[in-house]
Amino acid sequence: MKELIDLIGDPSRVILENIDETYQTDSLGRLRGIAEALVFVQTTEEVRKIMKFASENHIPVTPRGAGTNLVGSTVPQEGGIVLDLSGMNRILEIDPDTMTATVEPGVLLCDLQTEVEKLGLFYPPDPGEKTATIGGNISTNAGGMRAVKYGVTRDYVRALEVVLAGGEVMNVGTKTVKDSSGLSLKNLLIGSEGTLGVITKAVVKLIVKPAVSVGVLLPFKDLKTGIHAVLNVIRGNIDPTAVEFVEKKVISLGEEYTGLSFPHPNAGAYIILTLDGEDREGIERRIEKLREIAKGCHALDMLVLTDPKTIETVWTIRGCLVKSVEAKSEQIPVDIVVPINKSAEFIEYVHEVERETGVSMISFGHAGDGNVHLCVIRGDRSEEEWKRLSEIVMEKIYDKSHELGGLTSGEHGIGLSKKSYFLKAASKVNLQIMRSIKQALDPENLLNPKKVFEE
Amino acid sequence: MKELIDLIGDPSRVILENIDETYQTDSLGRLRGIAEALVFVQTTEEVRKIMKFASENHIPVTPRGAGTNLVGSTVPQEGGIVLDLSGMNRILEIDPDTMTATVEPGVLLCDLQTEVEKLGLFYPPDPGEKTATIGGNISTNAGGMRAVKYGVTRDYVRALEVVLAGGEVMNVGTKTVKDSSGLSLKNLLIGSEGTLGVITKAVVKLIVKPAVSVGVLLPFKDLKTGIHAVLNVIRGNIDPTAVEFVEKKVISLGEEYTGLSFPHPNAGAYIILTLDGEDREGIERRIEKLREIAKGCHALDMLVLTDPKTIETVWTIRGCLVKSVEAKSEQIPVDIVVPINKSAEFIEYVHEVERETGVSMISFGHAGDGNVHLCVIRGDRSEEEWKRLSEIVMEKIYDKSHELGGLTSGEHGIGLSKKSYFLKAASKVNLQIMRSIKQALDPENLLNPKKVFEE
Repeated sequence: MKELIDLIGDPSRVILENIDETYQTDSLGRLRGIAEALVFVQTTEEVRKIMKFASENHIPVTPRGAGTNLVGSTVPQEGGIVLDLSGMNRILEIDPDTMTATVEPGVLLCDLQTEVEKLGLFYPPDPGEKTATIGGNISTNAGGMRAVKYGVTRDYVRALEVVLAGGEVMNVGTKTVKDSSGLSLKNLLIGSEGTLGVITKAVVKLIVKPAVSVGVLLPFKDLKTGIHAVLNVIRGNIDPTAVEFVEKKVISLGEEYTGLSFPHPNAGAYIILTLDGEDREGIERRIEKLREIAKGCHALDMLVLTDPKTIETVWTIRGCLVKSVEAKSEQIPVDIVVPINKSAEFIEYVHEVERETGVSMISFGHAGDGNVHLCVIRGDRSEEEWKRLSEIVMEKIYDKSHELGGLTSGEHGIGLSKKSYFLKAASKVNLQIMRSIKQALDPENLLNPKKVFEE
Repeated sequence: MKELIDLIGDPSRVILENIDETYQTDSLGRLRGIAEALVFVQTTEEVRKIMKFASENHIPVTPRGAGTNLVGSTVPQEGGIVLDLSGMNRILEIDPDTMTATVEPGVLLCDLQTEVEKLGLFYPPDPGEKTATIGGNISTNAGGMRAVKYGVTRDYVRALEVVLAGGEVMNVGTKTVKDSSGLSLKNLLIGSEGTLGVITKAVVKLIVKPAVSVGVLLPFKDLKTGIHAVLNVIRGNIDPTAVEFVEKKVISLGEEYTGLSFPHPNAGAYIILTLDGEDREGIERRIEKLREIAKGCHALDMLVLTDPKTIETVWTIRGCLVKSVEAKSEQIPVDIVVPINKSAEFIEYVHEVERETGVSMISFGHAGDGNVHLCVIRGDRSEEEWKRLSEIVMEKIYDKSHELGGLTSGEHGIGLSKKSYFLKAASKVNLQIMRSIKQALDPENLLNPKKVFEE
């Protein structure tokens, strides 16, 4: 692999020995591969050269951004080259005329959000992990909290530059709003988890930053009552930006972790909403509508979050739920999505599986779009016991989600660690078509091999 | 092809002789193919059987809905079977919980709109041709007027059932909002103009019907001033649903055609806006903002359309522009899309080409998203002269749109009649990838052959 040093011309960016373990796993660090080379690329031209070299020499390539993924997507399962794109992190243009930003793939979500907001603009996709890269967000079609009102990453990608397996540079999409000109290769690449091409540039759509944003907290007796209320909130036409749900037991862990106190402690579960818009009067009218709905759905109270300190407390606790769970025990993250009217049934089933198996699961997530996050908690079980039990639990909950018309992943992607559940749920014909498309674009199977749809 | 009668079991739905010309062309009727069979299918199972038969016997298949397309998509260019899906026209479900409608592909847009609105719901995509089918809308990723605020057909497709070239039935997508589970075959099929599969069912997303909708008319001295104003309107954060532009000379044709009188006759061009929302107060605030913007952009006036008769007049005239042009002369429809900040430059170039070639072009369209419709007018030119001149004009305007970062088609699709411009504009690598995907899904090239990306 010494040729890589010549190709890049900067030995400090080509690591061939003692490759840091971080670059051979994902952010959970449980699945590991062994890379033969790690290259920190800085330009599309470098990516092109490496893909050409890899193709000529039949070397697998695993692209990575900030490595925040949770499903083993960045594990170099077949060895070869790990291509680190985190150094391609320039915002190349923010264009207020076409309301777009052109970015390199390594730009962090938080940096893009900050920069566009300085100009009164807004990039709506808002997955929990703000230090993920935009390239990674596009590769997994990341979702997040604001999907209820604004949609997911896919809805904000106008154009991409990608380097294909053979080293060809391809541009797909434009700055235009509409496109009925040929097959949508752009949409095929979005969410393809690095299996079809390496994203080297992206043009994303921006909107005008909402002038006002207000948080509302609805405490409920229990999760079931809360989840049932969500459908009424959605039907109530109050146009929420985010509708999150969380159980009290998770909040308690968050309180312990942060040392903060959540408002209205005497509840079994909470719905947290955000409403945004152009003027306070309009939002106040929607809040009044919400108050009526909340009453009819047995909410214990309704707290409009106006005090900046309370708002910070609520979102700090909501933001650190996974960390506060992990402070107590190892956990397996799940991001199943079901049709929104099946959320309650799914969560009731989760509770049933808890009782049946004794495995504790903490649930929270995006109530407004049926995207249920679970932390499946190991506790103090032995390695062997945990392997056996967790497999039973996972099988049950994935089967249930598919039975309800749901999907394996709402936003994290499939990668390696959800592949078996995805392969079980997907139809043969769908998998066959995915594989034939992979074969057409990457005939030597060099790009992120063994992931997503592969046996 | 007599076997088709056995397959379908109803001879009245299998036409093997004297096939009506309507079924061998598109709505313009200029390009014609020769079908050997025309089948009116009623179920997915029938489509499956026919595709299996076609595949086993290497017979091309051209699917069609209402046949309203303008680009030759429904011309059976290679003979074979024309598959008419217009009889599969049932709305199977309107589900207010998941805010979706499940429809057969032959359901007409106008029928879907009417039915969901009865329940207080709304299907936002709104292409001009309301008697097109939903299957056709999905096949071309149809756009329309409301794309500024609501996006295009692609943004409203949750799931599809398709029959593939070999007769396999494939389901893609779900009723869920999010999806990060494998390659997005759904998005590959949307806009593929019948080249990859036959759509036999669709689940589309609905929203709550806006409570209030208001029209505003801005007259300008000339089109240039009007188009320049659009960017300020978009930047002004008044959240318009539609921003249409139209030249006075087109309006005059519309007035003559309909016998109606357009308000504010002394202008060179108009911008027509729609604003919708939940309450009149909010809309009134946005109208006040718009008034300020309009003043700064040299609008001659601003008419808030409140009188139902005036509103009807404006939209009747806007709705019949193409027909009123065609009452005078044959025309070639163009639906180029450019980045919104290039619209003015593009339209100025169109005027330059008019002066240069003497060919008159009438422009109107979706100013809010850069989707410029042109009617290129034949007048009383001879067949030979028109062929020569129109080719020069088309070449020039398509080249210009691509130079400006635009696309061949914003909403009509490529079909047959825009193929040469699309093939010229698209990169080799993109075409190669499109063809390799076609090869993977339809190795015998049976589905709508010779269209879109084929040489």
